[in-house]
Amino acid sequence: MRFVRVSRPDGPAWAALHADGQHVILLQGNPFSEYTLTDMVAPMEKVTLLPPVLPTKLLCVGKNYAAHAAEMGGDVPSQPLIFSKPSTAVIGQDGTIVLPTQSAEVHHEAELAIVIGAVARNVPAADASKVIMGYTCANDVTARDLQRSDGQWTRAKGFDTFAPLGPWIDTDFDPSSGAKVRCRVNGEARQEGSLDDLVFGIGELVEWCSSFATLLPGDVILTGTPSGVGPLVDGDTVEVEVEGLGILRNTVTAA
Amino acid sequence: MRFVRVSRPDGPAWAALHADGQHVILLQGNPFSEYTLTDMVAPMEKVTLLPPVLPTKLLCVGKNYAAHAAEMGGDVPSQPLIFSKPSTAVIGQDGTIVLPTQSAEVHHEAELAIVIGAVARNVPAADASKVIMGYTCANDVTARDLQRSDGQWTRAKGFDTFAPLGPWIDTDFDPSSGAKVRCRVNGEARQEGSLDDLVFGIGELVEWCSSFATLLPGDVILTGTPSGVGPLVDGDTVEVEVEGLGILRNTVTAA
Repeated sequence: MRFVRVSRPDGPAWAALHADGQHVILLQGNPFSEYTLTDMVAPMEKVTLLPPVLPTKLLCVGKNYAAHAAEMGGDVPSQPLIFSKPSTAVIGQDGTIVLPTQSAEVHHEAELAIVIGAVARNVPAADASKVIMGYTCANDVTARDLQRSDGQWTRAKGFDTFAPLGPWIDTDFDPSSGAKVRCRVNGEARQEGSLDDLVFGIGELVEWCSSFATLLPGDVILTGTPSGVGPLVDGDTVEVEVEGLGILRNTVTAA
Repeated sequence: MRFVRVSRPDGPAWAALHADGQHVILLQGNPFSEYTLTDMVAPMEKVTLLPPVLPTKLLCVGKNYAAHAAEMGGDVPSQPLIFSKPSTAVIGQDGTIVLPTQSAEVHHEAELAIVIGAVARNVPAADASKVIMGYTCANDVTARDLQRSDGQWTRAKGFDTFAPLGPWIDTDFDPSSGAKVRCRVNGEARQEGSLDDLVFGIGELVEWCSSFATLLPGDVILTGTPSGVGPLVDGDTVEVEVEGLGILRNTVTAA
């Protein structure tokens, strides 16, 4: 099942993608607890997709593909390198990434994101699937110059609009499939890597993150980006594709 | 006015401290928008205080007192050094700080915390008071060994229970008063500094943080800790006092 959040006259609403891929079916309830499909169906092109989830926290892992660690001029870490983004950075499908005036070098980072479905603390890697609701695509947008100069990455990774998520939460996606994670800018290939090449896998990341912080339903863990990161400039269209999951598309504008 | 959140049979409720300091008065509404005082009054010793606010984000500033920067072996930064804590780390007055098994060196850091009262983006320092609802005491509990070894501070600062806040939000506290910020462990003085010695003042911190992330009502900015940081061990009672504001008291236990 693929779940989306859509904008409705009376506020955000949960919906599921129809099997035809062309329609959404409104839910009663929500996919984190109980829900039923209603008989309200709308064509995809008539609905505005919202970020598929509003996390209380977004935890991210740095240098989790060997080839990206190398291009950043470092080795693969011996343990997950965790940082976070604030929820105010989240935008959804077709949302606009705003390049801040403080940075001259904003980069795309295509990633697979884990969406947590249950309260989770000290979850062993082998049990991670029990607390994972599904997966979505993410762009870990980064002010690379500020990342270098600030030391701590909170600001460089935390600007408003720097956490595109979407287009949906896919509850059937299998990250062990070796799916490719890709980034395209204006249709041109920029990044590509395989989920087979994650240094720390999905289970290990859930175990590590839940070993220090309680994960809540809707929290998101970004799994790291493959090599090929590069600049975004005013007017760009950036796509993050996770093969078999979906394509997250965003435009870029100067502040 | 001093606002608290209290535990009630039907859930958390907002209240105000009575002028006698011995009672709380339940509110209708909440202090971020509209409220009225009700005629429901309870003695302080009969209510359980909750964290005075549940922030969507806690932004923190490192090395914001020269003497603390020196004891950490570094200079004062040339710009605010921002990091963050997840909301799951928040506990309130009399809550228990749990020492994680991963760390052998957990430190207290007494701080003044700013509580944001309005949606705030790109707020000049001179206008900061317009978006500040009030102030509370905070303990930026830190696994010092993991802070050193991890590089990024997200885990070392982000364990569950590592963000005690409280006991109340004081809307009349004046940070330009030069109030002392103190930490005591089991009654013994550990830290002391004056708000006059903040490297980056309240206005500058609001300006800096709101220059990259939209601040939301209830968000919290920790203003840094004075010198004298040191270990917390199983069985300790730690107090953070901001002179004229209040005393935040927490106990410490091994995991």
